[in-house]
Amino acid sequence: MAFTKRLDAALSRAIGRAQAAPSPARLASALDYAVTPGGARIRPTILLSVAAACGDDRPEISDAAAVALEMIHCASLVHDDLPCFDDADMRRGKPAVHRAYGEPLAVLAGDSLIVAAFEVLARDAGTVPERALALIRILSTRTGMPMGICAGQGWESEAQINLRAYHMAKTGALFIAATQMGAAAAGADPEPWEELGARIGEAFQVADDLRDALCSEAELGKPVGQDDLHGRPSAVSELGVSGAVQHLKDILAGAIASIPSCPGEAALAAMVRVQADRLVPTEVRGQTVPGE
Amino acid sequence: MAFTKRLDAALSRAIGRAQAAPSPARLASALDYAVTPGGARIRPTILLSVAAACGDDRPEISDAAAVALEMIHCASLVHDDLPCFDDADMRRGKPAVHRAYGEPLAVLAGDSLIVAAFEVLARDAGTVPERALALIRILSTRTGMPMGICAGQGWESEAQINLRAYHMAKTGALFIAATQMGAAAAGADPEPWEELGARIGEAFQVADDLRDALCSEAELGKPVGQDDLHGRPSAVSELGVSGAVQHLKDILAGAIASIPSCPGEAALAAMVRVQADRLVPTEVRGQTVPGE
Repeated sequence: MAFTKRLDAALSRAIGRAQAAPSPARLASALDYAVTPGGARIRPTILLSVAAACGDDRPEISDAAAVALEMIHCASLVHDDLPCFDDADMRRGKPAVHRAYGEPLAVLAGDSLIVAAFEVLARDAGTVPERALALIRILSTRTGMPMGICAGQGWESEAQINLRAYHMAKTGALFIAATQMGAAAAGADPEPWEELGARIGEAFQVADDLRDALCSEAELGKPVGQDDLHGRPSAVSELGVSGAVQHLKDILAGAIASIPSCPGEAALAAMVRVQADRLVPTEVRGQTVPGE
Repeated sequence: MAFTKRLDAALSRAIGRAQAAPSPARLASALDYAVTPGGARIRPTILLSVAAACGDDRPEISDAAAVALEMIHCASLVHDDLPCFDDADMRRGKPAVHRAYGEPLAVLAGDSLIVAAFEVLARDAGTVPERALALIRILSTRTGMPMGICAGQGWESEAQINLRAYHMAKTGALFIAATQMGAAAAGADPEPWEELGARIGEAFQVADDLRDALCSEAELGKPVGQDDLHGRPSAVSELGVSGAVQHLKDILAGAIASIPSCPGEAALAAMVRVQADRLVPTEVRGQTVPGE
């Protein structure tokens, strides 16, 4: 797919710049290890899809935005896998960064990727300074405190969790960043794109809960049953499996309905449908919900 | 001092924004804990001094730059103190963040401060977009890979250390950021300001080696003897105490000589001399170097 090729090329250039000599070789290697091979690259794919729907008149800005978003996502995986959080041994079918490179380099690889994300935006999206700044504002808002993914992870250290704020920050934030950054990269107003991102994020959270409850570790490439193990709230424990599947489908219908009017609206709706199909775990696809 | 007041007010506003409800209360509290009470605030003071020397025609931009730089510095202290690095119990006379809030919130507080630094620049320095982007480029270069403080810390995981690259990245980077960001905040060309930052950084590294070798834990507010303990290279082990003191003085003389021509050149030289005096530990001030 063209979006994946664009992303991989731009990501490879940005990582190469971060590895330029003289640099500490093991940390340089850990950066590449943390971002490749990618998972589904769903966030940057959504970003580039929204940019395309809005005209994508400056592809170099959209590419920078997609790279920055994916770097933040990968950084969050590296830090979330650390012993003090999930203590995960595996990620994407290979040893987690801290298992492969040790904990100090895992902390530093995450830090370096966060920094590199903003550097990419300032350097490669700077051809239109106002767009670069808008992208940095969106990405920082959805990454840090009080409502980015850092806040989402932070809620897990609270005795009383604000569930709405928790889910919105933990999973929703980077999907909102994806839709809003796609719009901003193409020079469109990012505000009307928040709802689409929020709904996709909500769907993704429910799908993740389903996968965590249903899939095997080999299929997932990371440990399963983590929600139960860590006592985290889950749609499956609240609604049951078939309830959660129905909820997922409702959310996705709402997501498609929320797409703002734009030149590529129909193609974007089709893309969301494709991503939506992937979200439903194979175990329950077409068998759990009556009439499916 | 006016610079300290400006910094404290701007830092307090930025931290307040990061704590806005609904946010996880313990992480919000950890952010404040990580940045207050400050140490000498030497990096933002240098930044604001250079900005003043260059005319400081947009104080809100200089303030944002100073806040961003101090946030990155504090984030690096929080992460460097983690058990997988220095495993330090104390920092600035109180328990380190991971001792006070636990390791997960220390990782997240560091991450959130890194993100907040770039957010402050994109939001509060955006009144002149080109300056905001220049500041983000400088700060990201001096924070991440391949030559920022992350790289500096990363060198400590290498079997073979490139000493020049290590010192420049580990300690020099944020002083170069200080001088270059001060110039860029005031609309001046940042390039000629690199040497001053590099020399101040070098002086600071030698002074830190001296303090680590000479001062008591109570005086320093953090564990001493860490360089010896972790086998890190040190100017004291290479040159001896009196050799290191003389080296420090030579570097500072070079720093003052390197100040680029600018409206406030004389006042800036005076500020560097004041900071320089503070750098020499009291134990060796005027007694170790013959003729002093």
